[in-house]
Amino acid sequence: MQIEGKNSVLEALRVGKKFESLLILQGSKSCGEIEQLAAAKKIGIKYVPKQKLDDISKTHKHQGVIAYIEGFKYVPLESLFKDDGFVVLLDSIEDPHNLGSIIRTCECAGVDGIVIPKHRACEVNETVFKTSAGAVNHVKIAQVGSLNDAIEKMKDNGYFVFATAMDGELAKNTNLKGKIGIVIGNEGSGVHKLTRQICDGTLKIEMRGKLNSLNASVACGIIVFQALEQR
Amino acid sequence: MQIEGKNSVLEALRVGKKFESLLILQGSKSCGEIEQLAAAKKIGIKYVPKQKLDDISKTHKHQGVIAYIEGFKYVPLESLFKDDGFVVLLDSIEDPHNLGSIIRTCECAGVDGIVIPKHRACEVNETVFKTSAGAVNHVKIAQVGSLNDAIEKMKDNGYFVFATAMDGELAKNTNLKGKIGIVIGNEGSGVHKLTRQICDGTLKIEMRGKLNSLNASVACGIIVFQALEQR
Repeated sequence: MQIEGKNSVLEALRVGKKFESLLILQGSKSCGEIEQLAAAKKIGIKYVPKQKLDDISKTHKHQGVIAYIEGFKYVPLESLFKDDGFVVLLDSIEDPHNLGSIIRTCECAGVDGIVIPKHRACEVNETVFKTSAGAVNHVKIAQVGSLNDAIEKMKDNGYFVFATAMDGELAKNTNLKGKIGIVIGNEGSGVHKLTRQICDGTLKIEMRGKLNSLNASVACGIIVFQALEQR
Repeated sequence: MQIEGKNSVLEALRVGKKFESLLILQGSKSCGEIEQLAAAKKIGIKYVPKQKLDDISKTHKHQGVIAYIEGFKYVPLESLFKDDGFVVLLDSIEDPHNLGSIIRTCECAGVDGIVIPKHRACEVNETVFKTSAGAVNHVKIAQVGSLNDAIEKMKDNGYFVFATAMDGELAKNTNLKGKIGIVIGNEGSGVHKLTRQICDGTLKIEMRGKLNSLNASVACGIIVFQALEQR
């Protein structure tokens, strides 16, 4: 996997990711911390001209450093389960910036893990890695064949799972303690009807505008931190 | 100002923005609502090939429609003031995606207005327009020479102004009713020291992770909606 930018590369070094190669801009004076950490871990650095980095950059925000590291390691769903656990499930988030931002938010909230579906949804790629500001290294993510099966399995394991919905219940009127899962819907279409039906309850954000259309990652942040206030 | 994408153009039509020109992809079948609204408002449509739209697109997500409309109209700071008013102040947000997302969030929260500084901060441009999903048309924005002077003026008008800060007070322990302003800090450096000093109080988001680094627009969403719970 190709990762770009100082924060992403620093985080990958700090958590001990396996590096295939590390490219730094020739003459760069702002990558000292990366160079020190790489030296300590015996990772070779290749210094390259700006044009080379510009050519291979996918985010166009490489900040003078690009690395190739081992791919993201998903975990089994069951490894997210724990007493008083808090799991966030993403019902087909498509935009890598939203997925990255949601992972970053979940790290801050101390969420035990995130569940994403294998199909018709964004995977953990380079853009996600960068947008998460390295948080992907600190949050467990399970990739499942069926989100609905995952919800059923969570319910079997004592979880109370909520779907976010425009006509749901307010967080403050709902018990969000104990083992819970919260399903965040797709950017355009929200939580699928069938998925909502198998959930134990619904949650909404109180809106007071005219358009009342929140970005998916902002909506996730609001709901997750509203839950945290009770936990 | 150049705006792109169906939602942005539809919103601009709905709120009665003055159009200089409106370009739609030749043979497009998905712009019917835009075409109807434009016809009703006697705005001429120019049908152009995909290459033309690709060439002039700045966001690279034009969805087959680009328009040129009158520039964004900022309002005077005083026009945001009202009884029990709620104002969000942005201390040098630099990323247009963050500014757009914050405007979108403030629209959903029914915030009375946003204050942004003229210098060293992102203005309302095309990317902001698109990221806000049209919310810029529904939220008053004042652009001020000095954010600190604006805060002093708000305090003179009975506002209690909070700076967000890592070591601030929790929203739930703070009275956020009445006339309030909340200052959201820059993506990297937070709220400036001097700005923080002239504020009446501080607010923080309770973090439970290791990195604890939230995206600025997500942080704004969490704080604004925590305030809303009291209002």
